[in-house]
Amino acid sequence: MNATAPDVLRYADGQICEFPDELAAEEPLEIRVRGRAISVTMRTPGDDSDLAAGFLLTEGLIRHASDILNIQACERNEFSNVINVLLAPDVAVDFDRLTRHVFASSSCGLCGKVTVEAVRGQFPPVQGDFAINAGVILKLPEIMRRTQATFDRTGGLHAAAVFDERGELIVLREDVGRHNAVDKVIGHCLRSDRLPLDRHVLLVSGRSSFEIMQKALAAGVAIVAAVSAPSSLAVEFARESGQTLIGFLREGRMNVYANPQRVRF
Amino acid sequence: MNATAPDVLRYADGQICEFPDELAAEEPLEIRVRGRAISVTMRTPGDDSDLAAGFLLTEGLIRHASDILNIQACERNEFSNVINVLLAPDVAVDFDRLTRHVFASSSCGLCGKVTVEAVRGQFPPVQGDFAINAGVILKLPEIMRRTQATFDRTGGLHAAAVFDERGELIVLREDVGRHNAVDKVIGHCLRSDRLPLDRHVLLVSGRSSFEIMQKALAAGVAIVAAVSAPSSLAVEFARESGQTLIGFLREGRMNVYANPQRVRF
Repeated sequence: MNATAPDVLRYADGQICEFPDELAAEEPLEIRVRGRAISVTMRTPGDDSDLAAGFLLTEGLIRHASDILNIQACERNEFSNVINVLLAPDVAVDFDRLTRHVFASSSCGLCGKVTVEAVRGQFPPVQGDFAINAGVILKLPEIMRRTQATFDRTGGLHAAAVFDERGELIVLREDVGRHNAVDKVIGHCLRSDRLPLDRHVLLVSGRSSFEIMQKALAAGVAIVAAVSAPSSLAVEFARESGQTLIGFLREGRMNVYANPQRVRF
Repeated sequence: MNATAPDVLRYADGQICEFPDELAAEEPLEIRVRGRAISVTMRTPGDDSDLAAGFLLTEGLIRHASDILNIQACERNEFSNVINVLLAPDVAVDFDRLTRHVFASSSCGLCGKVTVEAVRGQFPPVQGDFAINAGVILKLPEIMRRTQATFDRTGGLHAAAVFDERGELIVLREDVGRHNAVDKVIGHCLRSDRLPLDRHVLLVSGRSSFEIMQKALAAGVAIVAAVSAPSSLAVEFARESGQTLIGFLREGRMNVYANPQRVRF
């Protein structure tokens, strides 16, 4: 979803002109569970139910699609920027399990290692002998780029996409927030009963961070690929969680930072 | 600060080789105020005192450099990933003022407009007749690029920099998190008594979002420039806050989205 800004000045080659510009839409979304606001995120409107479902899963609050009975926008809010998630009565919600609380409770032992361990303890490692041809992986960025609806027009959106083992696109979403794009595609897969994604590739348009790897692990993603660089903690997390991590996937090249056995060269 | 990952596979032009790769370091940092953990952020270690000071200012918890008596790493934490900020006794800390609480309390009226108003109410708008030559602004990305210590090696870091009205670089910081890079440069300026930055330019390496504009307003920044696109809410916020917002600043070009009177063409 885009918005338009009128009266933008463009300066190029010594010339000024005024024009209306298309912008990536950014609006807050409040996610409520059992009457409690558990998150306010700045996101690009659209696919909010997927975003909410994905967020709950990747932050460890729910485990299964059946944990969610219903998702609906708050009717009193004309902007649809508040969304209520109705969980099954038997789902025990541990609000303290939200990631930042996991961190906060690790006290003075806080370090990358402890952080990795705390999150790994929440989700099982990725296993299995699934592998995919390097040639299939190398084609994914071009498929993503062709499919991206908005980026070329606004330059302001991150993208995330899930592909199956044949390199077929299952879902792609764009958002002003990197984590939101990931939550949207994972939420889509959760709600269409595709989890775990243990024979799939999650591709992100930018860099891979610890939090991206954490979210991927929550969905059981076997291979995470990024067009740009990973952080140190993303690599450490992937190695300990059994995830294959690929970086700098572009122009027929890639670096494999963790668990390369899933890529057939 | 970089970390090294051994055993990375590089695939290019049909060839595989193994090599050690330099990565952008990512570690958690917990910021504590009056014994309370108010934030855990994934950041690139280094300049943590600036990060903590900047975060407190840009999230509206403090207003002046003198509000902070001391900042020190928690000694029991060998990793220096917990930092304590000692505030002056007369500083009334309104923990609810943290941005996410501002959002959360806006209830079903939550929308971009309300969000903008809630944050604007916290900080005075940018005023004054300060203006800068377009030619000076066009040179800033090249200065940033030349000064960036790490980006060319890891490809994994965002950068933020503050320039004065002559285009002289005051401070540049890199971080795996965009917001951290901004907090670090603003924290540096706060601690060296340069605030408000009402005759300065804040340049960020990526996109500009609502939160970047909010942090800039907290420091009184007159001009925010980004190498890439702004979001819709960044533009709306800038127009209502008196901030000049520049996007797509690269290769001798720029778009001015808000308050162009501060740019002399």
